[in-house]
Amino acid sequence: MIKKKRVERLAQTLKDRGIDALYIGPSTDLEYVGGLDTQPDERVRGLMVAKDARCFAMTPLLYKEEIVKAFEDVPFYAEWNDHEGFTGAFRRGCEHLGIVGGRIAFNDGVRAVDMLAVRDAMPMEMVNGADLLAGQRSRKDEEELEVLRESSRIVDKVVAKLQKFIRPGIKERDVAKKIPEFFEEEGVTQMSFNPIVASGPNGSMPHYSGGERVIGENDIVILDLGGRYKSYCSDTTRTLFTGTPTEEMKKVYEIVKRSQAAGEAAVRPGATGQDVDRAARQVIIDAGYGEFFFNRVGHGVGLAVHESPYMIEGNDVPLAPGNVFSVEPGIYLPGKFGVRIENLVAVRPDGSGEALNHFTRELTICGD
Amino acid sequence: MIKKKRVERLAQTLKDRGIDALYIGPSTDLEYVGGLDTQPDERVRGLMVAKDARCFAMTPLLYKEEIVKAFEDVPFYAEWNDHEGFTGAFRRGCEHLGIVGGRIAFNDGVRAVDMLAVRDAMPMEMVNGADLLAGQRSRKDEEELEVLRESSRIVDKVVAKLQKFIRPGIKERDVAKKIPEFFEEEGVTQMSFNPIVASGPNGSMPHYSGGERVIGENDIVILDLGGRYKSYCSDTTRTLFTGTPTEEMKKVYEIVKRSQAAGEAAVRPGATGQDVDRAARQVIIDAGYGEFFFNRVGHGVGLAVHESPYMIEGNDVPLAPGNVFSVEPGIYLPGKFGVRIENLVAVRPDGSGEALNHFTRELTICGD
Repeated sequence: MIKKKRVERLAQTLKDRGIDALYIGPSTDLEYVGGLDTQPDERVRGLMVAKDARCFAMTPLLYKEEIVKAFEDVPFYAEWNDHEGFTGAFRRGCEHLGIVGGRIAFNDGVRAVDMLAVRDAMPMEMVNGADLLAGQRSRKDEEELEVLRESSRIVDKVVAKLQKFIRPGIKERDVAKKIPEFFEEEGVTQMSFNPIVASGPNGSMPHYSGGERVIGENDIVILDLGGRYKSYCSDTTRTLFTGTPTEEMKKVYEIVKRSQAAGEAAVRPGATGQDVDRAARQVIIDAGYGEFFFNRVGHGVGLAVHESPYMIEGNDVPLAPGNVFSVEPGIYLPGKFGVRIENLVAVRPDGSGEALNHFTRELTICGD
Repeated sequence: MIKKKRVERLAQTLKDRGIDALYIGPSTDLEYVGGLDTQPDERVRGLMVAKDARCFAMTPLLYKEEIVKAFEDVPFYAEWNDHEGFTGAFRRGCEHLGIVGGRIAFNDGVRAVDMLAVRDAMPMEMVNGADLLAGQRSRKDEEELEVLRESSRIVDKVVAKLQKFIRPGIKERDVAKKIPEFFEEEGVTQMSFNPIVASGPNGSMPHYSGGERVIGENDIVILDLGGRYKSYCSDTTRTLFTGTPTEEMKKVYEIVKRSQAAGEAAVRPGATGQDVDRAARQVIIDAGYGEFFFNRVGHGVGLAVHESPYMIEGNDVPLAPGNVFSVEPGIYLPGKFGVRIENLVAVRPDGSGEALNHFTRELTICGD
């Protein structure tokens, strides 16, 4: 269903920025504004919102039944079928709203090749619309926060089950396969992202995607996972052990644990994303591992698993009540191992931080 | 690993079309040229290929280890880290190749918002690069064909297992969950797309994505599924029954079966994608159901599950040896049911068609 208040706020943003309309392709923006959860592919579909809050929907005939069901009451459907292609329908929709030749923004659910096909078929000025909904999306209301809390409670239960399940002799892939099963036992059927199970030296790749390595005795395993509960993502990381850690592992683990806690503690009235990044990063730098932590400390989480606000050097926008984001420092030692610990944190009305994850951050052995 | 011959053929295409370079984001194009299978997200990475066949790789530091491992020997890595953003690295890469200000094409693995960010940071002319690799990709060599044959043999086995498994009283979702399990028993761990299990009236939505409906007695179930074997997709559809079909279901099933066979038979020396579409469609039109078949008859299949060539009105390019594509007519009766039958077909050196799927197309009752 089209969320009218959200459309009206977006229309105000468009007016403020001198943009005629935003075209929203399949993306979490489209879920946020139109309640439609669909995957992008070569069949162009989405929603155009103009600065006067009027809309049209792009729909391939193949998807029309689903799209009408999702949007319910959009006044104009720009329909197209496979053999005619989508650009004619796009233009008809723009003519309906009187925006041909105008400044049209495109969100992150649109492929470059499709925008260029429109450009070659219709005059317009193309505008980067990546962040036009970011502001309103990043300030979650109480209803959204309650869903996010429950979503994090669920992932904590999944981590607890994984801690019991993991043992030497099984493959990373065996663990990864259990994750959706454990989520489903909690009623969650969609993942926030492909879970990461990175053991031993694979842990040095923050976004490792393999699965063939057999977990050994006295091994170290990074688990990074999340599920979508009522469309809102969880995202947490724990680094667990299958036996006795080496002295180096213990040392690195304690540094990352302190770094993560420092990042959370930096969520205070007036703090910025940069402040949180620096607070966590300084702990790692002071311990002499700065070069082995090369990515940002965190990202916002909501309908998308990566959204505003970002905990990153250069982000000097003060955090706002209702912001929800990860704090996830790590140390990545190529060829050796990696450690990462990640909690989600919500900003309370008073500006302080509320951790949404509660699985222990103390060094934990699997199966115990 | 960068596939040098494929890069050289692409460079020739660029020269022929007067384009300075193609930037390839995460996509099956990137698998084809660079052997890198990775998902697109907001961390921009990919490969630029210039018309002189020189390259540079874009890599966020977070992904560098994986990207170097995949590409092996790209001479220039344009690296960036989270806090500086990617546009500076993109420009450095373009300076290295001497293409700043040139005509740069972008493939379908690039988001519009990222291309616009580059446009705002560097002079260039943006070109639609959606089809620059389509020609060479659509003509599979003998090695690729053998992999595609095996991929289809595997999906046929999965369909046979599903035919035994499906019974009244289980949910569509229960069937959908079995599909990856059955694939894994055959050694295939990646799906070509989210499988479709659409029963009863849900079958009227060609891309139905629900799963809650309980399959009844005397019901009808569309199964549309595929797996990636050695990265090459299978894609097949069968419409099965759980008991006695109604007269209308039988009638519609026979029409679709004849239509599908007519489409396959139209794969002859000199035939075009349009000829195949028309041959299959005419059977449905003649039977009086033309308005209930509103999409194209088929699409190419390879590393991507949708690629060139398309079996569609308006495609008058002759089919070529090594083309592999689906023939998948359907009849979709809103509120009632749908029927679709889909085989992949490869074009032999003599221009005739070789069906890659062999599960029976006769009306089949589950569990028999």
